[in-house]
Amino acid sequence: MNVNGQPTRTIAPLPDCSGVVIIDQTRLPFRYESLTLRGLADAAEAISAMQVRGAPLIGATAAYGVALALNEGADLEAACATLAATRPTAVNLAWALARMKAVLAPLPAGERRAAAWAEAAAICDEDVELNRAIGRHGAGLIRAVAGRKPGPVNVLTHCNAGWLATVDWGTALAPVYAAFDAGVPIHVWVDETRPRNQGASLTAWELQQHGVPHTVIADNAGGHLMQHGKVDLCIVGTDRTAANGDVANKIGTYLKALAAHDNGVPFYVALPGPTIDWTLADGRAIPIEERRAEEVTCLSGETEAGEVVTVRVTPTGSPAANPAFDVTPARLVTGLITERGVCPAGRDGLLALYPERA
Amino acid sequence: MNVNGQPTRTIAPLPDCSGVVIIDQTRLPFRYESLTLRGLADAAEAISAMQVRGAPLIGATAAYGVALALNEGADLEAACATLAATRPTAVNLAWALARMKAVLAPLPAGERRAAAWAEAAAICDEDVELNRAIGRHGAGLIRAVAGRKPGPVNVLTHCNAGWLATVDWGTALAPVYAAFDAGVPIHVWVDETRPRNQGASLTAWELQQHGVPHTVIADNAGGHLMQHGKVDLCIVGTDRTAANGDVANKIGTYLKALAAHDNGVPFYVALPGPTIDWTLADGRAIPIEERRAEEVTCLSGETEAGEVVTVRVTPTGSPAANPAFDVTPARLVTGLITERGVCPAGRDGLLALYPERA
Repeated sequence: MNVNGQPTRTIAPLPDCSGVVIIDQTRLPFRYESLTLRGLADAAEAISAMQVRGAPLIGATAAYGVALALNEGADLEAACATLAATRPTAVNLAWALARMKAVLAPLPAGERRAAAWAEAAAICDEDVELNRAIGRHGAGLIRAVAGRKPGPVNVLTHCNAGWLATVDWGTALAPVYAAFDAGVPIHVWVDETRPRNQGASLTAWELQQHGVPHTVIADNAGGHLMQHGKVDLCIVGTDRTAANGDVANKIGTYLKALAAHDNGVPFYVALPGPTIDWTLADGRAIPIEERRAEEVTCLSGETEAGEVVTVRVTPTGSPAANPAFDVTPARLVTGLITERGVCPAGRDGLLALYPERA
Repeated sequence: MNVNGQPTRTIAPLPDCSGVVIIDQTRLPFRYESLTLRGLADAAEAISAMQVRGAPLIGATAAYGVALALNEGADLEAACATLAATRPTAVNLAWALARMKAVLAPLPAGERRAAAWAEAAAICDEDVELNRAIGRHGAGLIRAVAGRKPGPVNVLTHCNAGWLATVDWGTALAPVYAAFDAGVPIHVWVDETRPRNQGASLTAWELQQHGVPHTVIADNAGGHLMQHGKVDLCIVGTDRTAANGDVANKIGTYLKALAAHDNGVPFYVALPGPTIDWTLADGRAIPIEERRAEEVTCLSGETEAGEVVTVRVTPTGSPAANPAFDVTPARLVTGLITERGVCPAGRDGLLALYPERA
């Protein structure tokens, strides 16, 4: 999507394949800065430090991480192991690495490097096409609401599953962009998404850059808004979907799904096919990353003087816990928006769209 | 309760009735500072700027505000009108002012001032006794859990309904302090409570001062903890309870009640009798205060250098909305902990404890 009016992808190789350019998402929304990854260590650090985040973009970065590792003459298996260890929850990470290995391992050593760059680029292009299709299917749901009521369609989203979380378009926000670009009146409630504030910082920033009307709210506010008819539908992303339609997503998603269910508000999860973990019967087995307490006790923002500083918001010595994801059971999910269409959240629904998995 | 080992109330008159000493709660947890209110304007400002907050403490401050106004020779009716306009949701505010008027209006002008100071002190002493009784009844619930499982009883609370929200003891935390002081092993999950962070700043601070084990969590985390059996019961406060047991409390309370219900975790609301609004048939008519967007877009914390600064966490120009309370329907509330005992959340339960209201 556009940044300062300029079409931009979140990740792109340098023309001579000597590096990969990313947006340093830890600096948003205060600074818009690019960063060039030059080797395996840079790519692993970008993923673990969340300079790139979002399941699809993590997968794309891991793929380019393999290409960067081969530039350095690294061992394919060792490079994949290093990259696989950067984040535990996102299934796209394992998926992208498995795909790179499957393509590269059979090749003679001399051909692997060029093939790695080509395959990483293919993964990125396919991600863009998947998301464009998700946007097309999801926009139909938004358009249907617009046909039933006056005024803008109010969509609530949690965390950032926008184009910044993918290579382009986004997952949860792809339908929003598709509807907005088609002239459907729309307004987005943006959960700030503590503790890392991806909603307040990333989702708000990318919607503003694209001109989509939006309002930031505390994560606590969504239930109240739903009780008062101010949310027409929820659309969130997912880091991993089990074969029965249970979805792991940013911590707090489950609470919004409960509120949507209690108020008859449709709750959709947007996901590209690679996010489905067909090996998991249900969401209980999805590993949940426990992150550093400092993400809860401290946060960064910009002072009036324009300086970005980190402040502590808790008393010195009060401990904090930081589970990064939760699992929303399929019974609370109205539907899954995939690149192949919208289906009920359940094994039958998913298999109807992906019959090759039966 | 204790601060630096010293028994402390949140509000106390100067011995010569020339002023009222409060804790400036906007400075916690970084600075512990007292503030002396010298007149009506100070009292009104202390309430509206949330230097004092929490329904019972707001009522106590309003009562002393009337006494301070009479020190200045102000008109009783006008003073009450000024104080009544400071915060729209807390029923204790209207209750305390009505009580002051009922006592003072019939008196000759020359006797009102002394009577006002005496009545405000009586309101404070009664609040302490109410909360002590709430603590006694609620501690029984905690003790019952402790008898059924090894290890500490895990209590989740939202916002600050501790002693800082009252004159002493607190409402939701009174059972915690009573159980802890009686040697029951206990641990409190403290919701940080965005946007004003009363949990991260006030609840964590007062629990730490009293030595109660606790862990701060993002508001998003409670549902996940309940899904994994890490919460034995929830106890929250309320700013206004309708006659049918619906409760208005800090924004986000409703989401935790939904999660507790979904996971079979008991969800209790602690309240002193004056918090019940018998004129409201249900919670739908409770007015919900919409506060400034800046409370969402900006927040304060302490830098490593020990400076307290305010930072913006959203992109410049992204709007924000800030509803301050939500209403949790009685069907999600396991029980109400009052000074007269614990009852089911409903008209019959409340009338069994307060038969004089039938």
